[in-house]
Amino acid sequence: MKTFNNILIIGMGLIGSSIARALKKNDNAIKVFGVDNNSEVITKCKNLKIVNDCKSKIVEFSEQFDLIIICSPLSTYKEIFSVLNDYISKETFITDVGSTKVSVINDFKEICSNNNITFVPSHPIAGLEKSGPEYGFAELFENRYCILTPINKDENFISTIKTFWESIGMKIETMDAAYHDRVLAMTSHIPQLIAYSIVFTANELEEQLKDEVIKFSAAGFRDFTRLAGSDPIMWRDIYSMNKDAVIEMLGRFTEDLTTLQKSIRNNDKDFLEKTFSSTKEIRKKIELLGQAGSFDPTEKNVKKS
Amino acid sequence: MKTFNNILIIGMGLIGSSIARALKKNDNAIKVFGVDNNSEVITKCKNLKIVNDCKSKIVEFSEQFDLIIICSPLSTYKEIFSVLNDYISKETFITDVGSTKVSVINDFKEICSNNNITFVPSHPIAGLEKSGPEYGFAELFENRYCILTPINKDENFISTIKTFWESIGMKIETMDAAYHDRVLAMTSHIPQLIAYSIVFTANELEEQLKDEVIKFSAAGFRDFTRLAGSDPIMWRDIYSMNKDAVIEMLGRFTEDLTTLQKSIRNNDKDFLEKTFSSTKEIRKKIELLGQAGSFDPTEKNVKKS
Repeated sequence: MKTFNNILIIGMGLIGSSIARALKKNDNAIKVFGVDNNSEVITKCKNLKIVNDCKSKIVEFSEQFDLIIICSPLSTYKEIFSVLNDYISKETFITDVGSTKVSVINDFKEICSNNNITFVPSHPIAGLEKSGPEYGFAELFENRYCILTPINKDENFISTIKTFWESIGMKIETMDAAYHDRVLAMTSHIPQLIAYSIVFTANELEEQLKDEVIKFSAAGFRDFTRLAGSDPIMWRDIYSMNKDAVIEMLGRFTEDLTTLQKSIRNNDKDFLEKTFSSTKEIRKKIELLGQAGSFDPTEKNVKKS
Repeated sequence: MKTFNNILIIGMGLIGSSIARALKKNDNAIKVFGVDNNSEVITKCKNLKIVNDCKSKIVEFSEQFDLIIICSPLSTYKEIFSVLNDYISKETFITDVGSTKVSVINDFKEICSNNNITFVPSHPIAGLEKSGPEYGFAELFENRYCILTPINKDENFISTIKTFWESIGMKIETMDAAYHDRVLAMTSHIPQLIAYSIVFTANELEEQLKDEVIKFSAAGFRDFTRLAGSDPIMWRDIYSMNKDAVIEMLGRFTEDLTTLQKSIRNNDKDFLEKTFSSTKEIRKKIELLGQAGSFDPTEKNVKKS
């Protein structure tokens, strides 16, 4: 099976820079290059010595790569595929980290006709609410899932990309792209939208009440603000690309919230207690699966932004 | 000003046991007693040596206390006030940790006529999603806010309770009870209800999709399950006691969520980006205030339940 020695990462934000770090940590001899359209990001990557070189455009490189990983917002894919379609002149694997997969596959099929390209769409489920290469770290992917949604049935291609993600600590699942988009709508896109929404509501409150809400946020609100601190462009693109699944899941959520609201209005204590007990079980399952992360209510470990 | 040497904590769960630990940590000579109606909790407290003694009923004690702290669910207050009203025979301060304050004050006024009692309602804004004395720790209150909603204008009484909470590391704010209940509806009761609601929605999904949601929860959903792992009885009581403020804030939230839903349906990218950028600012303010807590996306620091 193919292993990669000459890798290009497009988009050197939190995820891209973390992949670069993880690769270098495993094997410092591997060559990892970065591309980013933000000059500050390039400077940071150079100062942090995360990559062998970082440029602002793919065409500024003169060499070919054996693996290219797209780590930029979903709205940039079409243009990137178009550039790569022209640039690539030898056999190259492409993968990506995009949070929706149907849109990515459609973009690829629409634009790429270059036979040197083997594209295996991926979604490493890992992240943080911080953006930028300075927040990346090599361990981000350890013990996290990466979902592959292959468009090519060649098992050899799939195994190659599987092995690549495994090399930085990930556990692999393969899934149909449309199913991926529904699952992620529920595990990621809806929670994120709700977090944005409640912080938006707080933001609209009269000034004094808003100050108080910020001050006493440790009561639960702060958990939502953590998510709502995420990259706006990345999320704007996700909702644009996964509209149908998001609206379906949002409909379900709104029904359930309305049911809870009604039971509060009617003081239906039995229903509330039963619902609140059932949700506890889900939390336990997530902890047992080792996917819960850990929360420290103090600021001891906070890296100041 | 009065300091307390003989303290009774009613309800030895996460908060009660953490107060006991914090008091003993500051001054091991102080006497702290516990009451809990759950025999397992009593056994745990004895094994953990958190308190001088722990009994199942207040009337099993023969002595008087100089401070009594109510740390049990809001639905238990009436009965507790009634027992204390009969039990107390010398000057005693009472405070509490309840998450709603209007209901607590109404219960007190309805039931307590004993002139030996000075009640200063409090709400230490600190907690975790875990329940039970085994999860408590002395540092839970450090640098967190405690809101007092005094019913008695005597500054000496207020200062006494203020100093008490400060002794375990808290920062004090004084507030009108009704205003407290509105602020907390927004910072705590609504986020919690939404967390319950989305985990409830996930729980209702067809079996396979549900398994997938749990497995890939690291994408955002897990943050909600953390809140939704909280004590069901405590929360049932909060919604029952703070119904009006909760329904008001929920109405605002639903309006904003509907606006976001519509902008996704219409693919209004500018509005989405603008909204998602504005929420980021709120997160920054919370971090600057030192109320953000810290989240580790790995399981390194997880205490297994």
